[in-house]
Amino acid sequence: MSKQEISTSVIRRLPRYHRFLAELAAKGTVRISSKELSRQMGMTASQIRQDLNCFGGFGQQGYGYNVRGLYDEIGQILGVSAHRRTILIGMGDLGRAIASHVSYAECGCELIGLFDSNPFVAGRDLKGMPIHHTDTLPGFCHQERPELAILCVPEHAASGVAQQLVDLNVRAFWNFSHGDLHFDDPAILVENVHLTDSLLTLTYGLGHDSADDPAESIKL
Amino acid sequence: MSKQEISTSVIRRLPRYHRFLAELAAKGTVRISSKELSRQMGMTASQIRQDLNCFGGFGQQGYGYNVRGLYDEIGQILGVSAHRRTILIGMGDLGRAIASHVSYAECGCELIGLFDSNPFVAGRDLKGMPIHHTDTLPGFCHQERPELAILCVPEHAASGVAQQLVDLNVRAFWNFSHGDLHFDDPAILVENVHLTDSLLTLTYGLGHDSADDPAESIKL
Repeated sequence: MSKQEISTSVIRRLPRYHRFLAELAAKGTVRISSKELSRQMGMTASQIRQDLNCFGGFGQQGYGYNVRGLYDEIGQILGVSAHRRTILIGMGDLGRAIASHVSYAECGCELIGLFDSNPFVAGRDLKGMPIHHTDTLPGFCHQERPELAILCVPEHAASGVAQQLVDLNVRAFWNFSHGDLHFDDPAILVENVHLTDSLLTLTYGLGHDSADDPAESIKL
Repeated sequence: MSKQEISTSVIRRLPRYHRFLAELAAKGTVRISSKELSRQMGMTASQIRQDLNCFGGFGQQGYGYNVRGLYDEIGQILGVSAHRRTILIGMGDLGRAIASHVSYAECGCELIGLFDSNPFVAGRDLKGMPIHHTDTLPGFCHQERPELAILCVPEHAASGVAQQLVDLNVRAFWNFSHGDLHFDDPAILVENVHLTDSLLTLTYGLGHDSADDPAESIKL
């Protein structure tokens, strides 16, 4: 693939394409037109063509996209075969849920360590995986070299833990703690997860009943 | 406010503005320019001006935005004072985490019932809130009239539970089950949560080191 610039907003849409194509492939769909894909994904066909053209000629005019080929190619671009070594800090309800609920292998990650600062939690295990005390992070990181950390710690602890991990060469953070993490160093990647943004979209929708108005845009 | 059309993409950005403005207000910021807001939010100033102009003249040329006023107004548009009656189905790790971790009141919701189909889970409580058996949903819904349901059930159960709840007049779903929910009726609102989309963005970023290239766009 030639070196080309891809905007971050296109990158952010790739996981969604990847999911849709996986579902289509699972249903046995071999080819799909941008028009049909747009209908199913709720996007415009021109947006889809524009996004996918960033990565070279996937579609053939009049033939649509090869579902499996496009799925594989987008997976390769995202790096789903990468096995990024990943640790999770904070084994409360949320940490346990994130540890068990996410298909790490499908996201190019491998969960290699669970940590908690509570001595009554450290020493236990989650589905056979031992939970270590956070005091052991330096030794663990030197030996196992995780690249990515998932933070499920309380808000007041998040930036301290994150800075410690940056010093231990962790380069990416999936942050579930309340309050955003931010690093001035652009080489440190952060995804601050805001679960409630989508709940607020529902709250908005319930207050602005679209049943009265089937138009795509929402009326105030 | 005059009746005007607001695109769904603007609506989807409102929770993010709301969060940022809350943080600014907490820090004591009284006014902020679109330029400074854009720097902090990582958006263009023209995008911000365009979004906020949808809701009338918040900003005054040369004076910036009144932080508290804009926060209150966006909160009112989203409906954060609405107390939408909300139930949560599925009290596994994820359901417990979502029940405890989310600030429902700040999202215009009130969590009024927890449910699980496992008789060993139903009858217990979570932080003082009783967990009911899903068999009791019809009676509960007739009496308490929830509008919104959070689904943390296994994928194979999600569409069945959702259809039952639609028949019981639930109109909105915050779906954490794997696999997307979809209703043909546009009056039924669904937010399918895809936690891993943001993890995949990190996986992508780790494979395309931006430290080599400080430009805003990511190079392949």
